[in-house]
Amino acid sequence: MNPQVGIIMGSQSDLPIMAEAAQFLEELGIAYELTVVSAHRTPQRMIDYAGSARERGIKVIVAGAGGAAHLPGMVASLTSLPVIGVPVKSSNSIDGWDSILSILQMPSGIPVATVALNGGKNAGILAASIVGAYDAEVGKKMDAFKAGLRQKVEESAAQIEEKGWKAVLKK
Amino acid sequence: MNPQVGIIMGSQSDLPIMAEAAQFLEELGIAYELTVVSAHRTPQRMIDYAGSARERGIKVIVAGAGGAAHLPGMVASLTSLPVIGVPVKSSNSIDGWDSILSILQMPSGIPVATVALNGGKNAGILAASIVGAYDAEVGKKMDAFKAGLRQKVEESAAQIEEKGWKAVLKK
Amino acid sequence: MNPQVGIIMGSQSDLPIMAEAAQFLEELGIAYELTVVSAHRTPQRMIDYAGSARERGIKVIVAGAGGAAHLPGMVASLTSLPVIGVPVKSSNSIDGWDSILSILQMPSGIPVATVALNGGKNAGILAASIVGAYDAEVGKKMDAFKAGLRQKVEESAAQIEEKGWKAVLKK
Amino acid sequence: MNPQVGIIMGSQSDLPIMAEAAQFLEELGIAYELTVVSAHRTPQRMIDYAGSARERGIKVIVAGAGGAAHLPGMVASLTSLPVIGVPVKSSNSIDGWDSILSILQMPSGIPVATVALNGGKNAGILAASIVGAYDAEVGKKMDAFKAGLRQKVEESAAQIEEKGWKAVLKK
Amino acid sequence: MNPQVGIIMGSQSDLPIMAEAAQFLEELGIAYELTVVSAHRTPQRMIDYAGSARERGIKVIVAGAGGAAHLPGMVASLTSLPVIGVPVKSSNSIDGWDSILSILQMPSGIPVATVALNGGKNAGILAASIVGAYDAEVGKKMDAFKAGLRQKVEESAAQIEEKGWKAVLKK
Amino acid sequence: MNPQVGIIMGSQSDLPIMAEAAQFLEELGIAYELTVVSAHRTPQRMIDYAGSARERGIKVIVAGAGGAAHLPGMVASLTSLPVIGVPVKSSNSIDGWDSILSILQMPSGIPVATVALNGGKNAGILAASIVGAYDAEVGKKMDAFKAGLRQKVEESAAQIEEKGWKAVLKK
Amino acid sequence: MNPQVGIIMGSQSDLPIMAEAAQFLEELGIAYELTVVSAHRTPQRMIDYAGSARERGIKVIVAGAGGAAHLPGMVASLTSLPVIGVPVKSSNSIDGWDSILSILQMPSGIPVATVALNGGKNAGILAASIVGAYDAEVGKKMDAFKAGLRQKVEESAAQIEEKGWKAVLKK
Amino acid sequence: MNPQVGIIMGSQSDLPIMAEAAQFLEELGIAYELTVVSAHRTPQRMIDYAGSARERGIKVIVAGAGGAAHLPGMVASLTSLPVIGVPVKSSNSIDGWDSILSILQMPSGIPVATVALNGGKNAGILAASIVGAYDAEVGKKMDAFKAGLRQKVEESAAQIEEKGWKAVLKK
Repeated sequence: MNPQVGIIMGSQSDLPIMAEAAQFLEELGIAYELTVVSAHRTPQRMIDYAGSARERGIKVIVAGAGGAAHLPGMVASLTSLPVIGVPVKSSNSIDGWDSILSILQMPSGIPVATVALNGGKNAGILAASIVGAYDAEVGKKMDAFKAGLRQKVEESAAQIEEKGWKAVLKK
Repeated sequence: MNPQVGIIMGSQSDLPIMAEAAQFLEELGIAYELTVVSAHRTPQRMIDYAGSARERGIKVIVAGAGGAAHLPGMVASLTSLPVIGVPVKSSNSIDGWDSILSILQMPSGIPVATVALNGGKNAGILAASIVGAYDAEVGKKMDAFKAGLRQKVEESAAQIEEKGWKAVLKK
Repeated sequence: MNPQVGIIMGSQSDLPIMAEAAQFLEELGIAYELTVVSAHRTPQRMIDYAGSARERGIKVIVAGAGGAAHLPGMVASLTSLPVIGVPVKSSNSIDGWDSILSILQMPSGIPVATVALNGGKNAGILAASIVGAYDAEVGKKMDAFKAGLRQKVEESAAQIEEKGWKAVLKK
Repeated sequence: MNPQVGIIMGSQSDLPIMAEAAQFLEELGIAYELTVVSAHRTPQRMIDYAGSARERGIKVIVAGAGGAAHLPGMVASLTSLPVIGVPVKSSNSIDGWDSILSILQMPSGIPVATVALNGGKNAGILAASIVGAYDAEVGKKMDAFKAGLRQKVEESAAQIEEKGWKAVLKK
Repeated sequence: MNPQVGIIMGSQSDLPIMAEAAQFLEELGIAYELTVVSAHRTPQRMIDYAGSARERGIKVIVAGAGGAAHLPGMVASLTSLPVIGVPVKSSNSIDGWDSILSILQMPSGIPVATVALNGGKNAGILAASIVGAYDAEVGKKMDAFKAGLRQKVEESAAQIEEKGWKAVLKK
Repeated sequence: MNPQVGIIMGSQSDLPIMAEAAQFLEELGIAYELTVVSAHRTPQRMIDYAGSARERGIKVIVAGAGGAAHLPGMVASLTSLPVIGVPVKSSNSIDGWDSILSILQMPSGIPVATVALNGGKNAGILAASIVGAYDAEVGKKMDAFKAGLRQKVEESAAQIEEKGWKAVLKK
Repeated sequence: MNPQVGIIMGSQSDLPIMAEAAQFLEELGIAYELTVVSAHRTPQRMIDYAGSARERGIKVIVAGAGGAAHLPGMVASLTSLPVIGVPVKSSNSIDGWDSILSILQMPSGIPVATVALNGGKNAGILAASIVGAYDAEVGKKMDAFKAGLRQKVEESAAQIEEKGWKAVLKK
Repeated sequence: MNPQVGIIMGSQSDLPIMAEAAQFLEELGIAYELTVVSAHRTPQRMIDYAGSARERGIKVIVAGAGGAAHLPGMVASLTSLPVIGVPVKSSNSIDGWDSILSILQMPSGIPVATVALNGGKNAGILAASIVGAYDAEVGKKMDAFKAGLRQKVEESAAQIEEKGWKAVLKK
């Protein structure tokens, strides 16, 4: 099956965060591809990647980067597909503000769908929700995923209410 | 034609920002609906809106709110459709940080596709890019829109290069 | 005795902070209940909890959450009882600003009584002060608690003045 | 009738913000008193005010101040009644951060129930919700107030849906 | 004479700021070129501009942009010439933080020489100081410029000391 | 009488703020001098000023500057007299953070006594309090000044309590 | 000898920072006193301390506190002696901003001489510079202290220049 | 060979960061000098260093400092050579904001070419790019360096695409 979601990151050091997006898509059975594309170090590679994405059947691109994070916005400028941006907190980051603001505050005309700091998993979920808006089977899986979130909270609540918070806290 | 994009906002005071999303969708011929839904003042209305969106044929929800902006995140918790959040800078906002952070920093499991502060138009463009990923005709219009952005810059550059920046600045 | 204070949190991971509120109420002999209610994962449970609180005899609700923390504000929108919000610093928090601003900056009409970052104990004290405004016995205990705070400082001062700061610092 | 809520502010320049609290309490028929008490300019007056509040029948104190805003926290240290703090954005304020942080981030033992920047009205509503937790008649009025908020949103939504957003925006 | 400094900006709206750089270079008799190049709207034009700069005799590129400002960093990735970045405060900017951080916090390997917010003139001076490090005539003009700055302060000081600050303030 | 306080500023544009310091000292009858000294534009003048201050009888230096404000810290490095720093909010300031942090966060060994943003008057008061710690007559005037602050608040409180806040607000 | 400098702190947990002020004064032979005084827990003790300071011969008060740090400002309101404030970064501090802003941003009339975050030693140096402005012997010691700072840097520079930075870095 | 780049830092504790600049210049065969010069502790040494730099053949000065970092800006005021500033995150830094803002936000007339927080290596690269703008051999090495950056990313991408991200992540 052709990949529907393209996951890219500015550096291999972003992989632990971005792998969470891949992991979620895998769990939902959504085909994806994942690689490293750097806006600053491989600009031509970025242009080729973004320029060919639609014809290769990609529906959504997930792009993560840290610091002055230009990859998501530059990719969004090179394709008219939706681009999800993941601000990664890099080692010399100023508390994450740099990657958040350089992904979020895109000028008029070139939006990036920004998720929370280090939100690799949420980027995967958002990509899946886009696929699921048009693919009924994926849509059902997304509903089931949401139901699973609810169930975990209810189990946690039941445990605290039954055993008391002191017992739960001790664990 | 059934609306494919649902645009909601927490208060009528957000309309000037959110109308830009509607305007863009209209220009691209994408059917949409627009109304006011407040997380804090009409929680049941919000639940009904989000809960029925998928079955009503909505593919993407665009939600704008200011201050401690809970509408986008709450709607994202009530549907598995993609939700685009627009942080609106309200009158007593702390430079917009409050609405940005309360929309962007969603917990694991419930992403919101956040755009720039007051980015109503960009939210409309992002919604159109999602529709355009699956609707080839819209996809082509999106490509044309991007080409138009390029053209405007090139015209602006040509004007400055021909007339000189002093002449352009005087205007 | 019916619980007078309801303590809720968005996730079991908030328990170490929120348990401090429970601990304080217990020390003052104020009946409380404590459970997990997630705005994003169990919205219906949240609505039921908030909607029934007054008739169940609850006087104050203490709600803690991290990141884009919507629980306190959403609960405040669903009840006319006073709601105390505890901003919890979550693992990917941006220095706590996200939870603080998404709890504090509520729109006109729906206040949340916000305490300091990770201020679980202070939320318990604030809840007790509300109960103590109407229950003379609790009021006296609160006065005694304040006197205890004073006494500890005076003992600390006496120790430093008698032994000298070098001796105290060495310990 | 004895005042149940005491409204104080650090300077007469805070009156436009703090009057909104008084206005709301008046609308709900809750007796209050309002005056100027400065932590820095009239410390003894502050001590007398806070020290006598409980015996004068006050149930909640609402204190507003700007800049390095010490009044709410100092009053909270001088009484065991609940204290609501209103961060006022003063003329040389650093975007309001100074008053917010110096009211919100109280040390363990001395909470202040902080509301949004310039949130005078919300402070009045929070005070009324505390009174209404114990006074059934006020509680009913608070429920009616919340219903009124809902109604305004519904009317606004109906207007937009009927007339269309373009007509509403033109006004 | 071939231009030695290339001044580019992401949008014509940045011209009032960036014209100050051109103005300074003109005063020092340093040949320059100035045009509009958008990272997001004309990526290919940006690549062509940066890629040909060295062979066209450019020694320094000055690039200004606002919001999520990617132009300076992207140009720095496309040439090994020094690139000076000017953070421009755009209309929906978050107090300028977005453009500052997305220009300043470049990853290892791709520096941008960032100047102050809206620092168009300072960018021109910095470019001139680079030219002046290798061109003795320009170096002398730069020394004269610095002497001029000193002289203005001394005149201002003399005026205040002679007339008194009250007379100067009244003007 | 020899000046006891030296007031300096980085630019004549800081005069409206710094004149408030001079005004206060004049009211208390403390001799002062006031001039412009720029760390960046007249470094030698700064060195001469700071180096000769003690022998000229100066007891305290008040230094104001905006943006990357180096004057107060540099003067503090050039004299062992106490230096009071006034962060001035310059025209391209980032909300005043730049001048505050570049004055306040001095390294170990070289403190600057920093006052609030644009706090020219407070710098004058602080200088007077230092003089007043050693000059009994000035000390008495300082006590009288504080009493005056108290009196103004009491009058304001009396006016509100007598006329009611609505009458006062209308004015 | 009567103490000339009074060092106080809001909590014994501030002692490691505040002891550095005491240590410096001791090295310069300036008599001081050090104790714990809490604005929030022992307000009366604070009033007594500040009110009696001048008559006890104190010339400068150094006050340190964390979080919503009210001690320095409140003491400044209770005496007309100069007060030096030390923002201490407490355990739940928001990166130190809370204590900095609640000490620095004092309203007009009540300045606090604020030093850097955790700047206990700098507070001691500042206090000594005030004493040294009036006491020639202390003034000379302060000049010697500054010379010592210079000497250390020169030695460090000599070491690097002689041995090379690689050898120094290896150590 | 005479040094072409002068690297200075405010304190030996900045050496680990600033050594990265030296290391890069060494790899490119650009002669440099490195020493410690403190704006606050050795002002005369700073003046001598900056004043003689041009005649000693220096083309660019790289200056690093932390906290209220005045060295880069003061050196820029004392020479008309280009000055690159490295904000170093010192031990009591407020998340690096202090050094960034006190280096970046220089007043009109005195620019500093600021690089990212702790960006010692990037400062070296920027200095090399300035040298390389005028020295063709260095220019070629800079192009080779950029090509090397590209190659590393391509190798990383190839590895992930061949082995799969799970295998790469496990390492």
